[in-house]
Amino acid sequence: MVSFFQNTGPYNINELIKFTKFSKKKKFENNIIKNVSNLKDAKKGDITFLENSRYLSELENTKASYCFIEKKYMSKLNTKVKPIVSTNPLLDFILIIKIFYPDADGDNFKFKPNVKYKKLLANNTLVDASVKIGKNFKVGLNTTLKKNALIGDNVKIGSNCVISNAIIGDNVIINDGSVIGKIGYGFKHINKKMHFIPHIGHVKIGENVYIGSNCTIDRGSFANTIIGRNTMIDNSVHLAHNVNIGEFCFIAGQVGIAGSTQIGNHCMIGGQAGISGHLKIGNNVQIGGGSGVLKNLEDNSKVMGYPAKSIKDFLKS
Amino acid sequence: MVSFFQNTGPYNINELIKFTKFSKKKKFENNIIKNVSNLKDAKKGDITFLENSRYLSELENTKASYCFIEKKYMSKLNTKVKPIVSTNPLLDFILIIKIFYPDADGDNFKFKPNVKYKKLLANNTLVDASVKIGKNFKVGLNTTLKKNALIGDNVKIGSNCVISNAIIGDNVIINDGSVIGKIGYGFKHINKKMHFIPHIGHVKIGENVYIGSNCTIDRGSFANTIIGRNTMIDNSVHLAHNVNIGEFCFIAGQVGIAGSTQIGNHCMIGGQAGISGHLKIGNNVQIGGGSGVLKNLEDNSKVMGYPAKSIKDFLKS
Amino acid sequence: MVSFFQNTGPYNINELIKFTKFSKKKKFENNIIKNVSNLKDAKKGDITFLENSRYLSELENTKASYCFIEKKYMSKLNTKVKPIVSTNPLLDFILIIKIFYPDADGDNFKFKPNVKYKKLLANNTLVDASVKIGKNFKVGLNTTLKKNALIGDNVKIGSNCVISNAIIGDNVIINDGSVIGKIGYGFKHINKKMHFIPHIGHVKIGENVYIGSNCTIDRGSFANTIIGRNTMIDNSVHLAHNVNIGEFCFIAGQVGIAGSTQIGNHCMIGGQAGISGHLKIGNNVQIGGGSGVLKNLEDNSKVMGYPAKSIKDFLKS
Repeated sequence: MVSFFQNTGPYNINELIKFTKFSKKKKFENNIIKNVSNLKDAKKGDITFLENSRYLSELENTKASYCFIEKKYMSKLNTKVKPIVSTNPLLDFILIIKIFYPDADGDNFKFKPNVKYKKLLANNTLVDASVKIGKNFKVGLNTTLKKNALIGDNVKIGSNCVISNAIIGDNVIINDGSVIGKIGYGFKHINKKMHFIPHIGHVKIGENVYIGSNCTIDRGSFANTIIGRNTMIDNSVHLAHNVNIGEFCFIAGQVGIAGSTQIGNHCMIGGQAGISGHLKIGNNVQIGGGSGVLKNLEDNSKVMGYPAKSIKDFLKS
Repeated sequence: MVSFFQNTGPYNINELIKFTKFSKKKKFENNIIKNVSNLKDAKKGDITFLENSRYLSELENTKASYCFIEKKYMSKLNTKVKPIVSTNPLLDFILIIKIFYPDADGDNFKFKPNVKYKKLLANNTLVDASVKIGKNFKVGLNTTLKKNALIGDNVKIGSNCVISNAIIGDNVIINDGSVIGKIGYGFKHINKKMHFIPHIGHVKIGENVYIGSNCTIDRGSFANTIIGRNTMIDNSVHLAHNVNIGEFCFIAGQVGIAGSTQIGNHCMIGGQAGISGHLKIGNNVQIGGGSGVLKNLEDNSKVMGYPAKSIKDFLKS
Repeated sequence: MVSFFQNTGPYNINELIKFTKFSKKKKFENNIIKNVSNLKDAKKGDITFLENSRYLSELENTKASYCFIEKKYMSKLNTKVKPIVSTNPLLDFILIIKIFYPDADGDNFKFKPNVKYKKLLANNTLVDASVKIGKNFKVGLNTTLKKNALIGDNVKIGSNCVISNAIIGDNVIINDGSVIGKIGYGFKHINKKMHFIPHIGHVKIGENVYIGSNCTIDRGSFANTIIGRNTMIDNSVHLAHNVNIGEFCFIAGQVGIAGSTQIGNHCMIGGQAGISGHLKIGNNVQIGGGSGVLKNLEDNSKVMGYPAKSIKDFLKS
């Protein structure tokens, strides 16, 4: 997976394995591991992991070289991938990411003003040296473009925003007070100490997207958080790490979408609706305001309620 | 309707009609159209529209000169108003607003510091040249008073706020991180391209109002967003465009009120409650925390649940 | 109760009583009142009050010298405390706090930059003269550390935050746009005028706590708002005044907890869940996303729904 964060690898698999806590120690061939990745995006030379049974179907096609996996799921892994049996694949994977990407374990507080964009700096908006900005950029006051913000043409960003680890497409509008690209909400206890899950991903925002005020959109952990082109997001919406939203969606005020959930194209989500994590919502789905979606939804579903059910059933009850 | 935005009119009705997409083209008398308006606030010389059947009752008394209207509703229009038959009155009306108010189509990123308020500027708070501030003003740090903020006496505004297109009464307190007066969440596809609905309205906040931190209160589209005097609003509340709230109301944390809904006087709305758009909530209404209100509510209603029902019924079930 | 605000007392009880509106005027011995307090934290020489019947059990052990109390509850008060019979104990108590703590009636807009932390000031972050900061502090841009922020070692605070009246433990991380320590949402009509309830408390954040972006955590009124060590709070969470959260809790995005509610240790609260005020939630409690908790919950409860019921019952229905 391509990451804004610096990959300190490659590492020898037998060196890496020493840093794990829950894996069965055994001697592998002296293979070189180039990178960490989720199952889906992994390439040859990558190390990956199976988090839970929702992702079993991805074991068949992953191109990773090694995979942390519980013993019971080993038989589902394709034969080109070498299993590393672990009683806690996620934690062992996290420990390995910390080796590859020591900087992705939090948010960056170092700031080196970008002299190239002096005019912006004068406007009380601060731009980090790593930022690239396209043509015809407009920005409010007291906004910070932190490390790793790549901004397309004709983008408008309001006041008091904080943007980092984001690729922002052309014609995007982001309103005041929105925070985009910070580390997501993921922690694990390892030996009674709380550890952040490192977040090596970023936020990718397609062209013509609108994002309202006071939204929070976290960057991905081992994948990216993605908003498809022409999607319109209202105020105070919270999108957790790894959420993927399709094109031409409408997401109304105060909606919250939990981690790793995928939303199709042309969906409409009413105000204050909440969607659980790790779900797949199809295309053309309509979710009523205030609903709580706890299950996958097929294309063209129209749901409402908590837990959300078809609007017909909701109206009956 | 009085607007902070510049009216570029008047225009001849026969010139205007050429910009519509869904109206039956016909030759009208060479009348002059002075302004655009919603049905209720329209004056002679204004052009208006019927958005949907909820507003049928306003057809009888509107003082507009012209009205975009679907054929099926024509008979309800009072005879002093000339109908313009359209298969999509809202879209045609939007196209006309874009002619009258080309600047109301987004938020203003131009900023001209106000030398009159140099002392405020020193405090890292920025004030636009168009802003007027009353006596005994207190303000936090890193706050921006953008175009068209008229502020009464004894007002206190916290840090990191962004205020524009707002008339703020005496003794109002607005806390940190609140965004008031930006464009509302309204879009329409016209010829497969997404267009903002222009917002020519503003936010009007009555005297003695309190607004907590990280709230978002959008300005009106073809009407104003209004908060009556002595109403108290908690943190992270979202009020959409054209919402009208009466006097002496209490609105607790994280409440969301969708567009064009009207709330009476002396109402109490519990935390995280949501209210759908285009509703009328009476006086002295109490809405329990977390409720989802989907229907109009009469005076003195006490409701709870999702969908909200009378507290008696809620407790039974 | 120890308070950051200046105590202008002591006062003679017979002088104080003149400022009340609902108390039976009678002549007490010429005792000196040193401070105001809630029932639980009161010491000898303090004046306190009984807000409502939820706190009856605290009448037995309070160490206060005087207590505003309704006539019907007098018999429950321990005999060492002198009752002041009032038809509205809370309002009379508020009037007395205004005498003791005239500054706690709102948020402080005075700001005196702290020359000691010049390096921070250069970074466009402003630090008040009253602030104390530990070793190895990192801070974003455009953040304000206002009056009464005491910050431990290794703390990281993001951009656009506003912190006041807070004691922040070691290794705490607070992300962008969060507002901590402002006055809570409490008002009372006294003689047809709206009065803030003075907030003499602060926010106390234990070590290793994480707080996400755009959160709002209000300071306590007559007690403190407390977050126990190792508790992890996601984005856009709202904690009202006097909320107490235990250790090692996880509180997901957009959760709202109303005033004075107590949460035990090792609790998990799903996204968008809401918890009513004045409740006691035990240890090891799990509350599903989107739930609305209206009642106390015992240790080890697992609940879901609105109103929240046991997960077993929720799944059945």
